[in-house]
Amino acid sequence: MNRIGESITLTLFGASHDSRIGCVIDGIPPGYPVNVESITADLELRKPSAGIGTPRVEADVPEISGIVDGITTGCPVVITFSNSNTRSSDYEQLRRIPRPGHADYPAVSKFGPAHDIRGGGMFSGRMTTPLVAAGALLRDLIGSLGISVGSYVTRIGSVVDTNTYDPADVLTRSRTNPLRAMSSGIEDRMRAEILVAKSDGDSVGGIVRCFATGLPAGLGEPFFDTLDGEISKAVFAIPGVKAIGFGEGFAAAGLRGSENNDAYRIQNGSVVTLTNHAGGVLGGMSSGAVLDFSVAFKPTPSIAKQQMSVDLLTREDAELSVKGRHDPCIANRGAIVVEAMTVFTLADLALRGGFLV
Amino acid sequence: MNRIGESITLTLFGASHDSRIGCVIDGIPPGYPVNVESITADLELRKPSAGIGTPRVEADVPEISGIVDGITTGCPVVITFSNSNTRSSDYEQLRRIPRPGHADYPAVSKFGPAHDIRGGGMFSGRMTTPLVAAGALLRDLIGSLGISVGSYVTRIGSVVDTNTYDPADVLTRSRTNPLRAMSSGIEDRMRAEILVAKSDGDSVGGIVRCFATGLPAGLGEPFFDTLDGEISKAVFAIPGVKAIGFGEGFAAAGLRGSENNDAYRIQNGSVVTLTNHAGGVLGGMSSGAVLDFSVAFKPTPSIAKQQMSVDLLTREDAELSVKGRHDPCIANRGAIVVEAMTVFTLADLALRGGFLV
Amino acid sequence: MNRIGESITLTLFGASHDSRIGCVIDGIPPGYPVNVESITADLELRKPSAGIGTPRVEADVPEISGIVDGITTGCPVVITFSNSNTRSSDYEQLRRIPRPGHADYPAVSKFGPAHDIRGGGMFSGRMTTPLVAAGALLRDLIGSLGISVGSYVTRIGSVVDTNTYDPADVLTRSRTNPLRAMSSGIEDRMRAEILVAKSDGDSVGGIVRCFATGLPAGLGEPFFDTLDGEISKAVFAIPGVKAIGFGEGFAAAGLRGSENNDAYRIQNGSVVTLTNHAGGVLGGMSSGAVLDFSVAFKPTPSIAKQQMSVDLLTREDAELSVKGRHDPCIANRGAIVVEAMTVFTLADLALRGGFLV
Amino acid sequence: MNRIGESITLTLFGASHDSRIGCVIDGIPPGYPVNVESITADLELRKPSAGIGTPRVEADVPEISGIVDGITTGCPVVITFSNSNTRSSDYEQLRRIPRPGHADYPAVSKFGPAHDIRGGGMFSGRMTTPLVAAGALLRDLIGSLGISVGSYVTRIGSVVDTNTYDPADVLTRSRTNPLRAMSSGIEDRMRAEILVAKSDGDSVGGIVRCFATGLPAGLGEPFFDTLDGEISKAVFAIPGVKAIGFGEGFAAAGLRGSENNDAYRIQNGSVVTLTNHAGGVLGGMSSGAVLDFSVAFKPTPSIAKQQMSVDLLTREDAELSVKGRHDPCIANRGAIVVEAMTVFTLADLALRGGFLV
Repeated sequence: MNRIGESITLTLFGASHDSRIGCVIDGIPPGYPVNVESITADLELRKPSAGIGTPRVEADVPEISGIVDGITTGCPVVITFSNSNTRSSDYEQLRRIPRPGHADYPAVSKFGPAHDIRGGGMFSGRMTTPLVAAGALLRDLIGSLGISVGSYVTRIGSVVDTNTYDPADVLTRSRTNPLRAMSSGIEDRMRAEILVAKSDGDSVGGIVRCFATGLPAGLGEPFFDTLDGEISKAVFAIPGVKAIGFGEGFAAAGLRGSENNDAYRIQNGSVVTLTNHAGGVLGGMSSGAVLDFSVAFKPTPSIAKQQMSVDLLTREDAELSVKGRHDPCIANRGAIVVEAMTVFTLADLALRGGFLV
Repeated sequence: MNRIGESITLTLFGASHDSRIGCVIDGIPPGYPVNVESITADLELRKPSAGIGTPRVEADVPEISGIVDGITTGCPVVITFSNSNTRSSDYEQLRRIPRPGHADYPAVSKFGPAHDIRGGGMFSGRMTTPLVAAGALLRDLIGSLGISVGSYVTRIGSVVDTNTYDPADVLTRSRTNPLRAMSSGIEDRMRAEILVAKSDGDSVGGIVRCFATGLPAGLGEPFFDTLDGEISKAVFAIPGVKAIGFGEGFAAAGLRGSENNDAYRIQNGSVVTLTNHAGGVLGGMSSGAVLDFSVAFKPTPSIAKQQMSVDLLTREDAELSVKGRHDPCIANRGAIVVEAMTVFTLADLALRGGFLV
Repeated sequence: MNRIGESITLTLFGASHDSRIGCVIDGIPPGYPVNVESITADLELRKPSAGIGTPRVEADVPEISGIVDGITTGCPVVITFSNSNTRSSDYEQLRRIPRPGHADYPAVSKFGPAHDIRGGGMFSGRMTTPLVAAGALLRDLIGSLGISVGSYVTRIGSVVDTNTYDPADVLTRSRTNPLRAMSSGIEDRMRAEILVAKSDGDSVGGIVRCFATGLPAGLGEPFFDTLDGEISKAVFAIPGVKAIGFGEGFAAAGLRGSENNDAYRIQNGSVVTLTNHAGGVLGGMSSGAVLDFSVAFKPTPSIAKQQMSVDLLTREDAELSVKGRHDPCIANRGAIVVEAMTVFTLADLALRGGFLV
Repeated sequence: MNRIGESITLTLFGASHDSRIGCVIDGIPPGYPVNVESITADLELRKPSAGIGTPRVEADVPEISGIVDGITTGCPVVITFSNSNTRSSDYEQLRRIPRPGHADYPAVSKFGPAHDIRGGGMFSGRMTTPLVAAGALLRDLIGSLGISVGSYVTRIGSVVDTNTYDPADVLTRSRTNPLRAMSSGIEDRMRAEILVAKSDGDSVGGIVRCFATGLPAGLGEPFFDTLDGEISKAVFAIPGVKAIGFGEGFAAAGLRGSENNDAYRIQNGSVVTLTNHAGGVLGGMSSGAVLDFSVAFKPTPSIAKQQMSVDLLTREDAELSVKGRHDPCIANRGAIVVEAMTVFTLADLALRGGFLV
């Protein structure tokens, strides 16, 4: 269904070529200020970037209702965006000849001929716009607990950033460039990687690493509504995500317990860990250390190169070269979406756990 | 909370050293046969193995109610197990001196002094017993759609199985040995890896790869209740899981779209993919290809080696050597739990999506 | 929270004096036609009537998104209405001096100073506009099962309609007049009752009786999600409702089992009941007989007559005469809202129970 | 489904003639004492009374798990009861010849031949045993907010108690007799009414009035999760309930606003209402006045008198005289169940609303 969360819920609506898309956020406590600048700033990081992004550019001006004099009232908050720059004619053929690697085929199998295939319908990256706005709106809510969320891109195709960064640094520095890279040198290499793929009529994948600092210990509602499980569910809703790992992630499988366990010490009267192999999650709850996880985005499936597909009507093999306007890489634009889903999940779990009232 | 699922829900109860643990499964359609042999067989794969597992051995005889003459009635099904082999005295100290890498510290932070720390309480691997039974019970339900679920262990510490196997083979072959290895040669090497760690007072991690065959296209309820997201949430509830990846997983980030997209062809009148980089998931729905994902288990945090911890009462540094009876590796025993959570999630999504009535 | 339902969910948003109000309906199967005329017709029955209703009149033109070429796609359907005829200045005083019998006092207690008190905020009868539209939209969905829902007003103040009507007759006849009366004679008397109260600066209550015909046996999901319980929950969300009774309702307490039990007989091969004291509900499920329940609306609390209240700021007694534009009776306008909530609940339960796929 | 509640959930399992029945209560905060005496005392009020109740008597000894040293740990609490006094042979015939007024016919329609009809299965009054225990267990939780819940029987058949009582008096006095009457004179008349019906092979209905004192203003989560709506849903799950009304209930329809509105005054610095026509609910939230509602129970449908039914196999008319052991009145035993569902709902809403942490 198109709803996520429990104490705070987000209901997403619209489709890529609908006149409007948006979301309803229910459960935000009354009396909470809504910061439109913060929303606009995060939306900016989701926009396609000149040269490396899709030529479809939307104004992305949020219309927000359910607030009075800039503060929440206890009613749901609704954020909507109008779609204007749509070219639906590009898509009708895909109902018959599905794009390899895209949602077309399972969507038509599931929803039948009524499936809205224009622009990818509800499976379009366009649907992440309201998610980013919702996440931005809730930053101040978890900020009241001292929690901040940021991310950066650690990999685009073959370009890998192997440096180690201070989480506090990540929260700000990667916001300065559309690649969400931590240095201009890496930014340049990542941009080049994307442009080469684009010129080949192809696309590349990437990895986003996300941090949340300032979490109290105990956030998460085991047995099943774990911190890592809820974040994973939220993040897998983002189009293109294929993997997630917390702390060492898959590398933990190759470690010994004595290497992977994070030793506790007392520093200034507080419990700290000397390392963070766990990525800040133990037993499905925040440990008090920095939440640290990485997310893999696959290369955009919509590519100009000719591909093998099938004609679902004639049940014969067919070839396909995808028209329409698509990003050659979505990992960099996806970073702010990962942050948004993380902020949302933390806000929901903070309310569920009684950390916010 | 201790409930998962929507159309079929599972509510887990008990704790490691409670007199009984169990679960309530609600929403199974009436008239469905319950196969106790299948449950016992799956429970056998969860049991610790002589030599490489914990010396705590429980009979694990399921008591099942809510069925009449071997079939479901439309009432909830309840499965319980008695705990007999408990030694709670080993644990009281952990309330003050939390085990590094374990849930102790966040649990005490969250639940306070009332936290049931005996045997790890609700954070114990013991809690996965009812999960395995529930999964086994639901195998026939998804089996009626032609779906089968199996898994094998691809890595224990430094021992990595890089072979490629036919999914149909995986469904049966790895059930013959407690390591869940695909060959006796690999089994021997994995066992040796565990025994060396154990003799060092240490532990090792591992990776489980899970397959589900026979899925129709369209299973999963996007935007948020995606097939990959729901499986991830269910799998991260298993103690020790740190990462999950579908198909290529993190490796997708290094691929081009033309490499990662799975070409469609018509074979015998059906739509098939020539490859399965997507792991059987597109747009949060099953694509019709084999569901294929891998899960990383960290090394067991409870190790005999001395570790640095803190005394939460005196707020001073402390040292800890974990007593109690613990597995030096949980990945192999975790494989059947991954299968169980997968079966459960597929059953729930099949009912939600109208595939089962 | 502002969401109801499970397989079909309705999320309500906005407030009396927001620029827009509306709802998101998620879970409607794809390929289902949306009948705008039916929506407009039901909205007409909710509008205030000249002479006996509030002078605040809104155009109530629904803007519907999430459909393509007049049919649902599997995406959520969003229905919104703009508010134009608002006079918020009438309300600010009520934050300090709450109206007796109105939500003002508990709302300010719960939501604090951020509560949106303009026009009653989310507690306004205005919020029932999207509910009526949603119910109208779903009539065709349950219509595909042969289910029809109608209602009439059996009481306004001291005017009581004690006649017995054929349910099929009720489904159509009461739609011809704004009092929702079953005859013009009763309509005249009810109108007079309201006008007298109005001229006294006062208001009157009323009773709505609702029928649903064509239900299959077995709709409802006991133990807790019963047909009567779910309808009651949905109906108590309508502002002003104070009681609900199915079939004999409270009168059942005075009957013997031999009087109250509805005898079964076979007619034309079908199981029928000779009477319907149960109102079509047994064990929380539809019995196959006509669903028959009555709902009491209290008199509108906002009256011009002077009333005793308190000043929440000075903590002193205060007097109040309510300004603003209010209906002297809401039962007649409430009838179509009762129908809408009933249609919604039946649609949700039909999907949950596998009656619709 | 067999679960109710949100922040605190109750999952009910078992059936009338299962070996065990019980419930899982999830979400109770850790560190909360569990009072077994209070549970036993409430269960006593649910037991059939010598002479006027069913001869089926169960020990009703609760087995409680999920607590350590008498306090909750944050894990779910499980309460079970064994069934011993069952005579399933009485029931098989009812699968073919359903009892008029009972759940048999819709249950067989819904669940098919797998429906557990022994003792009424999950539709038996037996299933209310765990509900009463759960309610009793949660009394202390809402007691920590100053909330107390009690009830009395205002009507059995033609015997009506028209006296007015102080709510504080109701909380204790009606617990002294199995009729839940407020005086021995009324108790005697009610008992006689039941015995006459019983000797006629018949049954009688009744009305329970329930009070909750000490509620803060603002309990309830509008728009849809209202205090009155949630209580109604919970109460309609009790077998035999046909109507509910808050405060004036249906009588409000005959009042004017100036009569029905409850005037506010300041008394000792607090806001009070001079009357309580609203029954303590305004806008779906507690008003701060005493919660006051009445619930109608129908006469027990299982009666010895011969009744008209049908044979579902031959599709012919049939006659039926119900064997088995049944109460000639369930309203008096139902009173404590109404209290239990009320306590549960108030506890859940108190947690949801942040009144308890």
